[in-house]
Amino acid sequence: MSPSSDIAQRVYDHTWKLDPIIRSLLDTDFYKLLMLQMIWGLHPEVSATFSLLNRSRTVRLSEEIEESELRAQLDHARSLRFTKKEMIWLAGNSFYGRHQIFEPKFLAWLAQFSLPPYELKREDGQFVLHFHGRWCETTMWEIPALAIVNELRSRAALKRLGQFELDVLYARAKAKLWSKVERLRNLPGLRISDFGTRRRHSFLWQRWCVEALKEGLGGAFIGSSNVLLAMNNDLEAIGTNAHELPMVLGALARDDQQLRSAPYRVLEDWQKYYGGNLLIVLPDAFGTRSFLRDAPDWVADWTGVRPDSAPPIEGGEEIIAWWRRCGRDPKDKLLVFSDALDVDTIEETFHHFEGRVRMSFGWGTNLTNDFEGCAPSPNAALKAISLVCKVSEVNGRPAVKLADNPRKATGDPEEIARYLRVFGDAGRVEQEILV
Amino acid sequence: MSPSSDIAQRVYDHTWKLDPIIRSLLDTDFYKLLMLQMIWGLHPEVSATFSLLNRSRTVRLSEEIEESELRAQLDHARSLRFTKKEMIWLAGNSFYGRHQIFEPKFLAWLAQFSLPPYELKREDGQFVLHFHGRWCETTMWEIPALAIVNELRSRAALKRLGQFELDVLYARAKAKLWSKVERLRNLPGLRISDFGTRRRHSFLWQRWCVEALKEGLGGAFIGSSNVLLAMNNDLEAIGTNAHELPMVLGALARDDQQLRSAPYRVLEDWQKYYGGNLLIVLPDAFGTRSFLRDAPDWVADWTGVRPDSAPPIEGGEEIIAWWRRCGRDPKDKLLVFSDALDVDTIEETFHHFEGRVRMSFGWGTNLTNDFEGCAPSPNAALKAISLVCKVSEVNGRPAVKLADNPRKATGDPEEIARYLRVFGDAGRVEQEILV
Repeated sequence: MSPSSDIAQRVYDHTWKLDPIIRSLLDTDFYKLLMLQMIWGLHPEVSATFSLLNRSRTVRLSEEIEESELRAQLDHARSLRFTKKEMIWLAGNSFYGRHQIFEPKFLAWLAQFSLPPYELKREDGQFVLHFHGRWCETTMWEIPALAIVNELRSRAALKRLGQFELDVLYARAKAKLWSKVERLRNLPGLRISDFGTRRRHSFLWQRWCVEALKEGLGGAFIGSSNVLLAMNNDLEAIGTNAHELPMVLGALARDDQQLRSAPYRVLEDWQKYYGGNLLIVLPDAFGTRSFLRDAPDWVADWTGVRPDSAPPIEGGEEIIAWWRRCGRDPKDKLLVFSDALDVDTIEETFHHFEGRVRMSFGWGTNLTNDFEGCAPSPNAALKAISLVCKVSEVNGRPAVKLADNPRKATGDPEEIARYLRVFGDAGRVEQEILV
Repeated sequence: MSPSSDIAQRVYDHTWKLDPIIRSLLDTDFYKLLMLQMIWGLHPEVSATFSLLNRSRTVRLSEEIEESELRAQLDHARSLRFTKKEMIWLAGNSFYGRHQIFEPKFLAWLAQFSLPPYELKREDGQFVLHFHGRWCETTMWEIPALAIVNELRSRAALKRLGQFELDVLYARAKAKLWSKVERLRNLPGLRISDFGTRRRHSFLWQRWCVEALKEGLGGAFIGSSNVLLAMNNDLEAIGTNAHELPMVLGALARDDQQLRSAPYRVLEDWQKYYGGNLLIVLPDAFGTRSFLRDAPDWVADWTGVRPDSAPPIEGGEEIIAWWRRCGRDPKDKLLVFSDALDVDTIEETFHHFEGRVRMSFGWGTNLTNDFEGCAPSPNAALKAISLVCKVSEVNGRPAVKLADNPRKATGDPEEIARYLRVFGDAGRVEQEILV
């Protein structure tokens, strides 16, 4: 490095008050933007509170992370706006083969968008973090809030390490990820994408992981859920819809009958906005068994299904059996696996279903936050935790998720009991939550 | 990186005509300087030719490396002089606990030193590289010549790799070295140093390795043979003497009687210059068995012995038995192991001799040039080769090394036969040359 540039660099670095974790509103999952357009179009006045929930209770987050640092990062994220370049890309790019997926009026509204206020306090070693406001604003906090808390936790875990130890740590993590890439190369016809934004170790590390998959897997790497990384690396932005849609419609239901039909009304709405490969059913918000049992026949016409809280092989078999009962050929259908994947489960699932159904894998936490065995000495604070940011209240009423794994259920216990009466408990099995 | 410094950096980088491998005359092994002072003092007018020898004949060096690049690097090395800072450090530092190990007259001569001309041609896929001239000049080519050829070979091996593949390669190499460091940490009382300059993958990689040992092994890492790295990292410079001393005195011998006593005259000379921990016998130039058999009793008073071409355990046992025969307690003595070491042999040797003798390990090729399994696809050109630069001719007469491993013998076959008549072949056993 030339001496002159070294001085400039060092002086520039001295002026940093904050190393921002979120530097772009596109640093979020693509499904948030797809859902946002529909929420903005159909439910512009609905209020929804999103709340942070640490399912790894033994990890006392508010003792690992400084509250002031968390506030500084959240405040910085609130200062962001979509830039001109980002808006032009959203308008001009094609997504899932479709041009102008976002309508001009929505984009005009988005250009003014900023993240709404937050409410933060500490309780029993945890952060109590709520985002109150209109659903079409609070929904956008999910991913940045999770990414901020996770990266602040990583930073705290690494604070005591010297520069050399950090060098070894990342060298090991790179070597580890690359050995996973080499194993995945042996799966011919694999289709895999990065779903690791929310649980990532850090933004820079996720970027490296995405570049590694692009370089190492070639066409088998079909894209990233992270819109910013997709834009900057000329990758497909990947994602469709999430649990918050049936959860909000469920909370808005006036009676049990409306509640029972809420998951299907979500699909009807979605189909009006999007088509083709964006028609992926997420069946487990209130239990997959009841969802499939009560589904109208047209649901089986959708492109695919994403089982998200059942073990992948059991979950996939249940869906294939349902397609068969509905008279559809599973070979024309797509299963999207996205829950707690790592190379072992990907290989096993891939071989199990090979030739019987189309598959794709959305690889999350174990892609972007697997540092096991990488630290110079065991460092529990580097282990990813099961942190989520879920809609908790809708127009003053509690929101509920049941999931196929009762440990992933969220919501007020009385309301959970009511939802279980409406949807039943069939097929729900307790599983350890890995990530 | 700030935009302004980025421009300056890039413009600066554009102006590079050469990325020099040797950037300092201190980028050499410490024993060269210790020997140089004695050569300059006792044999200032002796001529000695040093010659490159690739013992890995199947590697066709002149097809892997561009002759023009080799010439450019050798020419650049010839342009170097010791800098003021370097001279001040040599004068002011203490080595092996001794102040002013280099006398002022020698340093005054050294301040004017530059590397003499070279003779380079290609023959049968190899470089024929000779350094003719006064011994006190040509001797200084050994290490830079080896480092240049080895690093040019690494560079050629990596030329086709993309930036990302290089990133993974070095990440793996770092992870690999660090796992070796972690194993070595389990040897209480270990004393180990870097002897890896000549066979290093590259200067920057050796620097990283040395920093890794310093960080990871603490006091067990006793220093580096590389004088520049020792200076820059506040480490001890490690090394004593090498085969060229008995080889040159052997070649200068007027008859077989003088030849037979040459190895001991070397020690007598050395003792006049240096004391204490610098009194390390290198016994194998013409075979360890005959050296010990014919050694005067005072040789057993020296601090230690460095077996360099026999397997470490057998070689060490032979020397311990000799100390016992001479009535010396091996516990007061030092064995310096330096031939073809890696973690397995270090562990094995350490445990074998633990408590019976003092030990230190000079770790070379497998420290600074072990990239096995690190490349994205198998890359034979990254595997270290057995390249040496030996004195081949002295005042017009051929020089000979026998070694304990006949495959490491160098010299004219007729002369080798004569040396074998003089010293005998006892205890010499063929071993595969690993590095």
